[in-house]
Amino acid sequence: MRMNDIIEKKRDGIALTDEEINFFIDGYTDGTIPDYQASALSMAIYFNGMTEQERATLTMRMVESGDTIDLSPIEGIKVDKHSTGGVGDTTTLVLAPLVAAVGVPVAKMSGRGLGHTGGTIDKLEAVPGFHVEIENDEFIRLVNENKISVIGQSGNLTPADKKLYGLRDVTATVNSIPLIASSIMSKKIAAGADAIVLDVKTGAGAFMKSEEESIELAKAMVSIGNNVGRQTMAVISDMGQPLGRAIGNALEVEEAIKTLRGEGPEDLTELSLTLGSQMVVVGGQAETLAEAREKLEAVIENGQALETFKTFLSSQGGDASVVDNVDGLPHAKYQIELPAKTSGYVSEIIADEIGQAASLLGAGRQTKDSVIDLAVGLVLNKKVGDYVEEGESLVTIHSNQENVDSIKEKLYHNMTITSEQIEAPALIKTIVSE
Amino acid sequence: MRMNDIIEKKRDGIALTDEEINFFIDGYTDGTIPDYQASALSMAIYFNGMTEQERATLTMRMVESGDTIDLSPIEGIKVDKHSTGGVGDTTTLVLAPLVAAVGVPVAKMSGRGLGHTGGTIDKLEAVPGFHVEIENDEFIRLVNENKISVIGQSGNLTPADKKLYGLRDVTATVNSIPLIASSIMSKKIAAGADAIVLDVKTGAGAFMKSEEESIELAKAMVSIGNNVGRQTMAVISDMGQPLGRAIGNALEVEEAIKTLRGEGPEDLTELSLTLGSQMVVVGGQAETLAEAREKLEAVIENGQALETFKTFLSSQGGDASVVDNVDGLPHAKYQIELPAKTSGYVSEIIADEIGQAASLLGAGRQTKDSVIDLAVGLVLNKKVGDYVEEGESLVTIHSNQENVDSIKEKLYHNMTITSEQIEAPALIKTIVSE
Repeated sequence: MRMNDIIEKKRDGIALTDEEINFFIDGYTDGTIPDYQASALSMAIYFNGMTEQERATLTMRMVESGDTIDLSPIEGIKVDKHSTGGVGDTTTLVLAPLVAAVGVPVAKMSGRGLGHTGGTIDKLEAVPGFHVEIENDEFIRLVNENKISVIGQSGNLTPADKKLYGLRDVTATVNSIPLIASSIMSKKIAAGADAIVLDVKTGAGAFMKSEEESIELAKAMVSIGNNVGRQTMAVISDMGQPLGRAIGNALEVEEAIKTLRGEGPEDLTELSLTLGSQMVVVGGQAETLAEAREKLEAVIENGQALETFKTFLSSQGGDASVVDNVDGLPHAKYQIELPAKTSGYVSEIIADEIGQAASLLGAGRQTKDSVIDLAVGLVLNKKVGDYVEEGESLVTIHSNQENVDSIKEKLYHNMTITSEQIEAPALIKTIVSE
Repeated sequence: MRMNDIIEKKRDGIALTDEEINFFIDGYTDGTIPDYQASALSMAIYFNGMTEQERATLTMRMVESGDTIDLSPIEGIKVDKHSTGGVGDTTTLVLAPLVAAVGVPVAKMSGRGLGHTGGTIDKLEAVPGFHVEIENDEFIRLVNENKISVIGQSGNLTPADKKLYGLRDVTATVNSIPLIASSIMSKKIAAGADAIVLDVKTGAGAFMKSEEESIELAKAMVSIGNNVGRQTMAVISDMGQPLGRAIGNALEVEEAIKTLRGEGPEDLTELSLTLGSQMVVVGGQAETLAEAREKLEAVIENGQALETFKTFLSSQGGDASVVDNVDGLPHAKYQIELPAKTSGYVSEIIADEIGQAASLLGAGRQTKDSVIDLAVGLVLNKKVGDYVEEGESLVTIHSNQENVDSIKEKLYHNMTITSEQIEAPALIKTIVSE
C-alpha cells in the first residue's frame, strides 16, 4: 500500500477502505508517513469529505493509536459530555452533580485549558482544598459510591489526533467537518465514554459561526458515535452572547451552586436541563427526554442535586460549606459597576470579546504556564433583550486591580443598546439525536 | 504574511496576489516554508486552479529562484521547442537543423533523460566523436556562425520547480494543469528561450491521455508564454502509437537523416514541418505558417537542411560522413524480424509498451547510472492502418542478444491485427496559438 495512491484516491472522490485509513493513521503516528503527505490528504478530505464508514474508521483508529481509559469497573453506562467551547460556559459544573443525582455515573477526566477562563478543574479549585490528584482506584471507587468524580488528564490519549490536529492547524485544514468530528469523538471514546452528549455552540462566540454548519457538525458526530456503538445526542445552542451571567472561575462556581438550587440564570438552567435530559436518556436512567427532565427538576427541587455536589466536593478534599455560604470562595478586592450610557434595550453582547475582557482581568491563561486569578471576572447584570436605564449597571467587574478603564472601554465597545425593543435570542436551536 | 493564510485563501477559491506567490516560492526555495504547507497548497491548487495572472507570476518566480541562461549574445530570436514526451520521438533531431537552415538560431541545452530511449544528447552521441562538452563561449560562437549548437545542461536552473515537482510526485498533486504548465514553462524560460513551441502529446503513450486535457494544458502554457513576453505556440499530436518507425538511439539518428533528406516516415515528416513552421514564425523568419512551411520544404529539397546537420555534427567533433553512409553508426549484432501471426490490418500499437520493449533491449536508462546501448532498438515495419500478410515482418528487432523471446512476446501482446480495414489516426489534432 502506498500513501500517494491513498491521497490520489481521496483526491478523486473515492471512499477509502478501512485498511487504507488504518495504514494512514498507523504510519502517521509512527512517523513512517511524513507530514507533507498527511497535509495533502487532509486538504483532499477538506474538498471531498468522508463517508460515514470512513469517519467511523478514522475515529476508532485514532482511539487505538494511544492509551485508552478503562472505566469498566464502574457500574452503569458512563456518559460524557463535550462542549465545542464558548464564553461563560458553566454547564459542566451544573451537569455533573445534576445527572449524578439521578443515578448517571459521571467519571470525568478534565483539563485546564487555555480559554477565556480556566477549565473545569481550575474552576473547581476555587473551592478551598479541592483537588483532582487522586489515584485511579480511588477515582473508580468514588464514582461507584457517589456517582461522581473528576480526575486530571493522564496517559497518552489519541496521539494520532494530537499530531494531525497540530498539522491541520498550520495547513488551513482545521475547518473540515469529518476531521473535526472524528477528532472530538476519538478523544471522548479514548477517555472511556460509553455514551456521549454534545453541546455544539453556534454564533459569534463559537467556532462554528453559522447554525447550518453547527448542525452539520453535530450530525457528523452523532453519526460517528452511533456507528461505533456509543449512543450520542447533541444540542445546538446559541453562543452569540455569553451563557449565564458569570464569566470567571469562582464566579462560575457560585453561579453553578445557584443553578443547582433552582435559582440560576434562565439560559444556563435551560441548557443544563436540556443536555442533562439527553445524558439521563443515553445513560439509561429514563426512557424519554420528558421523563428525564422531570427527574432532573425533581432533584433540583428536593435538594438532592446540591447534596450530590457537596458530597463530590468533600470527597476530593474540598470545603463543601461554600455551597451554603459562598463567602468561602475567593473574592476579588474591587467590585466595579459598568453604568449604561443610555436607556434602552440591550441588542448585542459579543461573546468572545467579553470573554477576552475577563481573560485580561486574569481569569484565563494566556500561555500554558500562566497563573489564573480564580477570584476575578465579570457578572452580566443585563443580557440581550433586557431593558436598562441610563446609569444602571450593565456589568459588575470583579477585579484585583483598581483601574479597569481599558476593560470598561472594551465592554462598552462590545455591548450595544438600542431604542427598539429586542427579543432575546432562542438559546436552544435544535436537537440532533440521529 | 503567513503561509497558512495563503493556503486558506487558495482553499477558499480566492486568487493569490503576486506578493503571496512570491512569498511562497521564495520561502519554499530557501526552506523557511516546510513541505507540508507546500503540499497542502498544491492540493488546494489542484482543486481550485489558478488564474492566468497567478500562473504567469508563479512561472516567473520559479525562473528567478535559480540560475538563468543568458543567450543575448546570440543574434535573433532564440526559439526553444518542448515535447511533453512520447515514444520514438525523433523530432528534435530533425527540427534543430531544419529550422537552423532557414535562419532560426537553435541554441539548445539538452539532457540525457530516463525515458524508453536516451535523450537528445544520447542519440547524438551515436555519431562517432560527437560531444556536447563545449564552453559557453564556443556554444554562443557556434550558434552565431552555424545557427545551431547543442550543449549539456549546467547551472542550477529553477530549483523551486525541482523541489516542488519532487514533492508533488509523492502527494498526488502532479496532475494539475496550472502546476504542470508553470513547471514546463519555467524551465524553458530559465534556459534562455525568447519564444517557445510546444508539442503536447495525447493518447495512450502520453502523459495526457485525453485530447481535451491536452488542449487545456497547451492553452495554459501558450497563455503563460504570451503573458510573460515569450511568444508561444503549440501542437497537439497523437501519441497513441509511436511516432515514426524507429525507437532507439542510433536508429533514430538514421531516421532523422532520412527525414532531413525528404525520405522519412510520413508522420515524423508532417510533425516536423508543423512544429518547424511554428518555430520559423515565432522566430520571425516568416509571417505565416504557410510561408514558413514552404521555406522548410525548400531546404529539405535543396539539401540545405542535411548540410546544416553535417556542419552541426562536425562542429562538435562528430563524424559527419555518417549522414551519407549510415554504416558509420553503431549497429546491433542481430536483426530479428517479428512475423505477423495472421493477415489483416494493424489496429493498435500501444506506444508506451512498445517503448518499454525498446528499453528492455537496452535502448533506455532504468536508473540514472545505467549505460545505454546506442545500437539497439526497434523499427516498426507496419503502423496503425497498414495491411500485413501473415508471416510478413511487423517489427525488426535490433538486439545485441540473440534470444529476444520475451521482447517478441511483449510486442505481440501490444500490437493488434483485425480483419476490418482501419483508418490511420490523425497525427495533428489541433494547433493552439493563443
